[in-house]
Amino acid sequence: MVLSVYGDSVSGNCLKVKWVLDRLKIDYRWVETSVVDGRTRTPEFLGINPAGQVPAVRLEDGRSLAQSNAIIGYFAEGTDLVPDDRYERARMYEWMFWEQYSHEPYIAVRRFQMFYLGRPDAELDPKLFERGAAALGRMEFGLEGRDRLSLADVALVAYTRVAHQGGFDLGLYPRVKAWVARVEGELGLPPAA
Amino acid sequence: MVLSVYGDSVSGNCLKVKWVLDRLKIDYRWVETSVVDGRTRTPEFLGINPAGQVPAVRLEDGRSLAQSNAIIGYFAEGTDLVPDDRYERARMYEWMFWEQYSHEPYIAVRRFQMFYLGRPDAELDPKLFERGAAALGRMEFGLEGRDRLSLADVALVAYTRVAHQGGFDLGLYPRVKAWVARVEGELGLPPAA
Repeated sequence: MVLSVYGDSVSGNCLKVKWVLDRLKIDYRWVETSVVDGRTRTPEFLGINPAGQVPAVRLEDGRSLAQSNAIIGYFAEGTDLVPDDRYERARMYEWMFWEQYSHEPYIAVRRFQMFYLGRPDAELDPKLFERGAAALGRMEFGLEGRDRLSLADVALVAYTRVAHQGGFDLGLYPRVKAWVARVEGELGLPPAA
Repeated sequence: MVLSVYGDSVSGNCLKVKWVLDRLKIDYRWVETSVVDGRTRTPEFLGINPAGQVPAVRLEDGRSLAQSNAIIGYFAEGTDLVPDDRYERARMYEWMFWEQYSHEPYIAVRRFQMFYLGRPDAELDPKLFERGAAALGRMEFGLEGRDRLSLADVALVAYTRVAHQGGFDLGLYPRVKAWVARVEGELGLPPAA
């Protein structure tokens, strides 16, 4: 059985998995699984991930795994994307947990509502903008010293690079903007439209 | 310098760190840091965790670390709280990321608003109840085979054991209830009031 990745190509969480597998030159089959057409709620998909969320992977031996940051942690363990040093590795996970708790729920959610659902500004929960901006502000002063690419950069860049699609102006965060360009370069990605 | 843990004793996220350190018999100084009186926003605290969130730890060498699940991962690495098997370790992280994304933001937040801020039911966002119940429902059918305590149990039990303080009836989830009692027993905790 070939490794299968169930993901939606417009989801940064799903693209994290693609980028890491591509970089590590691991072969896989991408199974396009849209989050808006109910495909994550079919019995077949729930058998892979009972939480009904993408991304999820089915390994060669049939076992499955979910949660973007847990999946990339699994594949990247022991590679140059995960620091050897115990403290640096914990810091990487600190950023990854922060991303899922304090960044994605605002920046990714606002982008989804604006860019994919076409909701006007006035209908959006103002907290999404306020907290998303706070997350970018924290990154502006917290990214120094990241000289070597790790999973933290992959996790953080996924929605930061498309934050403008959620109405955030990266021009206000010049260090974040420069870091996005650098990480996109390292991952071989074109700038997001 | 002695290891310092900055935490609020009513926060499940902070208690995770206490429970793991106690179990591993690691000495530390607990610095009570309330989330409601502005102590997480002082310049001193922001020097420890620029995200202004507890828990955070300052290690013996002066370096700091934040995010409950990253902190417990740091201390428990190489102990019996983290599976040796690579896939089982990734599953543990899957649960821990799921806990922070799909469990804590609903169950812990509703409990905080009800139990600590005293807000009446009618003022609470109905999504908190709906999604919190969905998380408990998922656990009811997803906890089988957890025969050995890991960090995933520690992370999940923190707010599940006090879910009733957020208006959730654990009587509806008998397997979750039995699992809570078992994990509390393993951690040496009395049942939550």
